[in-house]
Amino acid sequence: MKKHNIAILGFGVVGGGVAELISKNADELRSYLGCEVSIKHILDLRDFPTSPFAGLVTHSYDDIVNDPEVDTVIEVMGGSHPAYEYTVAALRAGKNVITSNKEVVANYGDEFAALARDNGVSYRFEAAVGGGIPVIAPLLSSVRQNKIKEVRGILNGTTNYILTKMFTYGDSFESALADAQARGYAERNPDADILGTDASRKITILTALVNDVLLSVDNIPTEGITGIRAADVRAAESVGHKIKLLGRCIVREEGKPLVIVAPFLLPVGSPLSGVDGVYNAIEVVAEPLGNVMFYGQGAGAGATASAVVGDLIPIIAYDGKNPIVPGFNRTDYSAKEALPEFVCKSYVATAASEERVHEVFGDVTVLGTVDEVAFITEEMSECELSSKLSDLGAPVLSRIRFL
Amino acid sequence: MKKHNIAILGFGVVGGGVAELISKNADELRSYLGCEVSIKHILDLRDFPTSPFAGLVTHSYDDIVNDPEVDTVIEVMGGSHPAYEYTVAALRAGKNVITSNKEVVANYGDEFAALARDNGVSYRFEAAVGGGIPVIAPLLSSVRQNKIKEVRGILNGTTNYILTKMFTYGDSFESALADAQARGYAERNPDADILGTDASRKITILTALVNDVLLSVDNIPTEGITGIRAADVRAAESVGHKIKLLGRCIVREEGKPLVIVAPFLLPVGSPLSGVDGVYNAIEVVAEPLGNVMFYGQGAGAGATASAVVGDLIPIIAYDGKNPIVPGFNRTDYSAKEALPEFVCKSYVATAASEERVHEVFGDVTVLGTVDEVAFITEEMSECELSSKLSDLGAPVLSRIRFL
Repeated sequence: MKKHNIAILGFGVVGGGVAELISKNADELRSYLGCEVSIKHILDLRDFPTSPFAGLVTHSYDDIVNDPEVDTVIEVMGGSHPAYEYTVAALRAGKNVITSNKEVVANYGDEFAALARDNGVSYRFEAAVGGGIPVIAPLLSSVRQNKIKEVRGILNGTTNYILTKMFTYGDSFESALADAQARGYAERNPDADILGTDASRKITILTALVNDVLLSVDNIPTEGITGIRAADVRAAESVGHKIKLLGRCIVREEGKPLVIVAPFLLPVGSPLSGVDGVYNAIEVVAEPLGNVMFYGQGAGAGATASAVVGDLIPIIAYDGKNPIVPGFNRTDYSAKEALPEFVCKSYVATAASEERVHEVFGDVTVLGTVDEVAFITEEMSECELSSKLSDLGAPVLSRIRFL
Repeated sequence: MKKHNIAILGFGVVGGGVAELISKNADELRSYLGCEVSIKHILDLRDFPTSPFAGLVTHSYDDIVNDPEVDTVIEVMGGSHPAYEYTVAALRAGKNVITSNKEVVANYGDEFAALARDNGVSYRFEAAVGGGIPVIAPLLSSVRQNKIKEVRGILNGTTNYILTKMFTYGDSFESALADAQARGYAERNPDADILGTDASRKITILTALVNDVLLSVDNIPTEGITGIRAADVRAAESVGHKIKLLGRCIVREEGKPLVIVAPFLLPVGSPLSGVDGVYNAIEVVAEPLGNVMFYGQGAGAGATASAVVGDLIPIIAYDGKNPIVPGFNRTDYSAKEALPEFVCKSYVATAASEERVHEVFGDVTVLGTVDEVAFITEEMSECELSSKLSDLGAPVLSRIRFL
């Protein structure tokens, strides 16, 4: 019988979940794949004397990268370094690499893809976007032969939980965040989530898959949810919409994609609007396929471990030779340059008078006039909107795009 | 450069869509897969003198099965015969087979899987369930290492359109069906859709994937939507539910799965309840993954062609050798035997008096008492419910299960 040896880098919550899932499924993997899968090493700085995996723990990466019996390295450490260096060394040593680490994929995916190709091994990262939701594999295979027009998603569970709480209970942003922290959905320092950084890493990866270019995360226009007020959520609801933080990559016929991370107003009843709480979902708009959506838990040890071990199946089934290498072509294109061309309707709340709003924006729908004037603009470019907003001559309290 | 030759069986709407999509994407497939994909034959009884593919049309299957240059046969004829005979002959001749034909997969998938394995070729059928939605591939790979507890779905777009129309506009079943027929969503003879046969074929296939047994479609308890009244839809809505036709396969720790096709009441806000119109969705409940859902167009030439051509990608990428063969083990187990063990709450409408309902069912919630008494039972087995319903001593006008 074939044998396939694994090394796991990082024995935290996800690493522990992966080890457990592989051990539990050893019999199933053996009968399904005709292969004996076993964990040979676990790299961590700590020791785990009471763990059933205690004997596999090493503190030296050399034990792994120099072990010719290791077929696949599973990197679940997180962060860019030393995950980057370890990944490079593993691929150079002819080992497949699986990761759940969106940061290192978004920053160095192009190098890894090239190294994997050159060394005839697989580099897989299903868990890096959407947690346990199978979305990377379909984008590389089942959906690939379509003309993809857009991929967009609710890519961050923490912010979706906060927005759901604000919508359902009328919470302020601050109180919904405090609740998310109390439940362990948001970290003590929640910036990577609430400022949109996490979502921008994920849309970077999705953009590489559907548009074959790898942008720098810094070049993606990114707005978080910190500016969203309870009043905005109520106003959105009054016109049948929910506010959701979306990552969007709009593929254009010519030139570079429009990529953005920002809150959007979505009509209630549309597929993404029904995605609440910590759930994630990714919607693909393609020809001739139409719209498809993938929904599930975007984080958590169990869902992430499921995606990581799921990546093992094709590696083993196809003997580690995965000829489908993602289209990570590094570009210094900044999606920020294209933002002024982005066209949409917007919800705006301003301290200007209703009269002034009509002077500048014409015959728009006014949603409310208590303390402030809230209204919905016509479709216009970012460029045109900015100019009109400054014509108002009074502070803009809120501005959120319509999907 | 590698070459990969295709033959298409059946040049109807789907076959035409497949031919078009392959031709349109020839460049993309060449650069993505390093392979020249071309259509060599198209089998149909008719001629298509004005089609750009006219020169490829043959009336004889021998031209295809005896052509050693044909790598993959795409069967999009529909029906069991001669699709069965053609598939067997193609697999025996060492050709991969892709199909969109749920009937032939549900009836003969076990034979095809065994033939594919014995001949070292692939047998793929992504388009047979959920149209363009990638769901078969994830169940065979990304999700496979989980303990799957249930797979359930809205598997038929025609019935979902009818139920959506009844919910949104208060239509009767008859009027919603007439509307679906007028729009081309339902056939002149709509029985395969409205009686649940189409959905039972699809849940048969999903059961084979998640529980490794291939049941006879006749052995699946199947209820269609013909008995659903506008009054039932209103009553469901009054308690925050929608009625959806679901196919469900509940995997059990020991013994055989519970499989059923029937209308269910789903709470508004749950993932499947938001799936409206002709859309389909499949939800998988698994450990440690949690719930994932796949959503999209369940039918139509474009979506179906997308799934069919999507099946080509791994075949070409992995040189036609697909070692992952679905777990189609033929069983004569009848899921009808297990139905009495099925436990759920039910919505019931009866001609019995409210007093009699309380005598038999105890302190249940009564939803309405105009002309009939509608109420919701406690959770109980089918067996217990049947006995209580006959105790009512009056006609049961409707009975629908809660999810």
